[in-house]
Amino acid sequence: MTDTLNYKAVFDAGMDRFLTEWKEFLSFPSISASSDHDNDCRECANWLVLHMRQMGLSAELMETSTKPVVFAEKPGVPGSPVVLFYGHYDVQPADPLDAWESPPFLPELRNGRMYARGAQDNKGQLLYVLKAVETLIEHNRLKAGIKIIIEGEEESGCQGITESLTRWQDKLKADILMVADTSTVSTGAPTIILGLRGLAHLMVNLGGLSHDLHSGIHGGTAPNPVAEIARLVASLHDDSGKIAVEGFYDDVQPPDAREQALAAIIPFDEQTYLEETGVLPVAGEKNYSPVERTGFRPSIDINGISGGYTGSGVKTVIASSAFAKITARLVPNQDPQKCLEMIIRHLRKHAPAGLTLKISDAGIAGPGFRLDPDSRVVRQAVKTLDSISEQKTVFLWEGASIPIVSSLSRIAGAEPLLVGFGSEQDNIHAPNESFSIEQFRRGFIYAASFIESL
Amino acid sequence: MTDTLNYKAVFDAGMDRFLTEWKEFLSFPSISASSDHDNDCRECANWLVLHMRQMGLSAELMETSTKPVVFAEKPGVPGSPVVLFYGHYDVQPADPLDAWESPPFLPELRNGRMYARGAQDNKGQLLYVLKAVETLIEHNRLKAGIKIIIEGEEESGCQGITESLTRWQDKLKADILMVADTSTVSTGAPTIILGLRGLAHLMVNLGGLSHDLHSGIHGGTAPNPVAEIARLVASLHDDSGKIAVEGFYDDVQPPDAREQALAAIIPFDEQTYLEETGVLPVAGEKNYSPVERTGFRPSIDINGISGGYTGSGVKTVIASSAFAKITARLVPNQDPQKCLEMIIRHLRKHAPAGLTLKISDAGIAGPGFRLDPDSRVVRQAVKTLDSISEQKTVFLWEGASIPIVSSLSRIAGAEPLLVGFGSEQDNIHAPNESFSIEQFRRGFIYAASFIESL
Repeated sequence: MTDTLNYKAVFDAGMDRFLTEWKEFLSFPSISASSDHDNDCRECANWLVLHMRQMGLSAELMETSTKPVVFAEKPGVPGSPVVLFYGHYDVQPADPLDAWESPPFLPELRNGRMYARGAQDNKGQLLYVLKAVETLIEHNRLKAGIKIIIEGEEESGCQGITESLTRWQDKLKADILMVADTSTVSTGAPTIILGLRGLAHLMVNLGGLSHDLHSGIHGGTAPNPVAEIARLVASLHDDSGKIAVEGFYDDVQPPDAREQALAAIIPFDEQTYLEETGVLPVAGEKNYSPVERTGFRPSIDINGISGGYTGSGVKTVIASSAFAKITARLVPNQDPQKCLEMIIRHLRKHAPAGLTLKISDAGIAGPGFRLDPDSRVVRQAVKTLDSISEQKTVFLWEGASIPIVSSLSRIAGAEPLLVGFGSEQDNIHAPNESFSIEQFRRGFIYAASFIESL
Repeated sequence: MTDTLNYKAVFDAGMDRFLTEWKEFLSFPSISASSDHDNDCRECANWLVLHMRQMGLSAELMETSTKPVVFAEKPGVPGSPVVLFYGHYDVQPADPLDAWESPPFLPELRNGRMYARGAQDNKGQLLYVLKAVETLIEHNRLKAGIKIIIEGEEESGCQGITESLTRWQDKLKADILMVADTSTVSTGAPTIILGLRGLAHLMVNLGGLSHDLHSGIHGGTAPNPVAEIARLVASLHDDSGKIAVEGFYDDVQPPDAREQALAAIIPFDEQTYLEETGVLPVAGEKNYSPVERTGFRPSIDINGISGGYTGSGVKTVIASSAFAKITARLVPNQDPQKCLEMIIRHLRKHAPAGLTLKISDAGIAGPGFRLDPDSRVVRQAVKTLDSISEQKTVFLWEGASIPIVSSLSRIAGAEPLLVGFGSEQDNIHAPNESFSIEQFRRGFIYAASFIESL
């Protein structure tokens, strides 16, 4: 085979079509958290099947007990490795809607960035890999076997794919599990993710009052669900920022010497963090750096709280109930089920007198994991990234979760490789999510170059 | 003058008309908390002016810088005392709307109870006094001078009337300040309120994040406004239920021996409380009884809290901001302004690192006060109540506030007399507020008999 193609030129030639397809993909409101969007999710999955067939892959919808999973494949040259690419077509809810400058499902290109829910996470990053595969097929550069699995519940628990993995084991066999659902470090240097955190989630509700009470007549006498949900949620951490749930840190696997050394050279700048987020990275355990906290330490996060009167003016009420939505990020060797149970035990133990405590939506999405920085696949990815970038490749342990990676890599017998081109300014999971064409192009060039190199 | 009229018979004869007028009065959505209802408030005030003119009073709208105040009067026989009756035509917001069995502003009579926002507080209780005055006029039984002042901001800070009191001083001169905005003890025995708590209010907002953040990437690193608003709000009380704001109890005036003795005989039954509210009265300071806590002790109440994702499913987000709405109930000798400042100082002192704290809607409605249980007016009211009821009259110190009573009684030179016929099952400030025809009739008979007795 000759030298690699000039993928930048190929991209620029095809860009108009890529952008049109990207917009089409983004226009499906495939929000998995709400069953109102079940049909949108299915239509989005069908679009992917047709799209990949047009790319020259055999593609199908695989049903699960919940959302359908899209699967596509193209056998490789005998003896070549098989790449299994994982992505998700579902997106986060788009609220608060009024904070969007353009509607979340009417994709809009502004100043070189595509604005829409899912523009980056994961539709944007997923699509550049598909476009890379398409290009390799078109130019007859594809030696590796390609398998693509795209699920529809990454943002809400991965139930369907998780339940079906064993059933699909033969189909999924591969050597490398490619995932493009991550970001680069803040400098923008190409970044290989060597670890992700696991995830457990639950909702806690305090109630018991038969109706809202007058806070004058009952203030200081009737237990107040709003005040008590605040106290209960606050009890999950001590005043220093440490998790106060008994036993929660017991099984945490500390980084080894090699990981500590690599972590120490990860670029992290407080001022950049402040510019990107508006705040300094001051939460959590004081005796760990921000890089260590997100990479090697678990967290418990309050994602939402609600109760009582929240309109304008004064309403002197003791609300009949209040609730909070909680997730925990877990690190290797923490058993998600056990962690979930510890949190629930803590909440029950600290339940306020007089009120009823209800736990709902309790579940786990997957464990945390860390990868070998010196494996053959990682070394090959570093070589590819270094050859196409001006900055040197960086390793990172990310705080987020891609819940399925751990079990999918086990079932497929494949080594995970996590390289993505997201950045903090993409506002994923937030209003005005976007992804730059520049990042999209980088991802495309990386994916094409890496797969070609195999 | 002959024996008193049979007011029960008079009521029954006029009941159909009274109910029709009551429904008409209740159909105005005169919610003072939201400026969306400014016009509804004004229309409601105009309705009252016309209604009282038809009753034979001279009535007018008195403008303020905010909502108009309704004033009406009829001079008495020279030498007779002057009664100033205070009420309010505004109501609490009606949300959550979907918890109402019938729409809050389409009054509906079911099983002898009138259901609507304001059915009791204060339109129902206000109207039975107007109907009593009307009856006294009709039957030529009115010796006392009558003045009636009805404001439109009792539920949201009393700004307009408070600012105007000095200006109206001459007009308001009276001997007795009658208020019918209170309830009976749980047994239903006629109840004279000997004290009310004061009120201060504020809203606290935590922000600083430039947008919602991904809780995986930032969990345990970026400060979380939702978690921190919970911690901040929780810090207002210690674990025993005492207020933890420095100095908050310093000026609290304890009850004297006579008040303690009267409080000790107030009927209070935990089981009845549980039946009426769904909860046991377990909140607040452990070393005071529920009667003492609501009567003689201040409270800080969290009326609402909101932040982050509160929809269905899981959304792994760190919200950019969160807020809580807080009110404090104050007792005699506590300076509302000073208390408000102490709370704000506490919140600033406990403000979480890295986030910005904003206080808004901070204000005071009025101080707490207690009355002399042995005054001539109170004794006359006991006599009237005992003569028309099967149960003996009870004294009570209520936990609620009628912010204007204190300053209005000072300006008018009038002694407050607080007798009302509300009950816990009226659900005031809550969905499905109602007031029974039976209670309405009791109020009517009391008001007519008492005013006639003067």
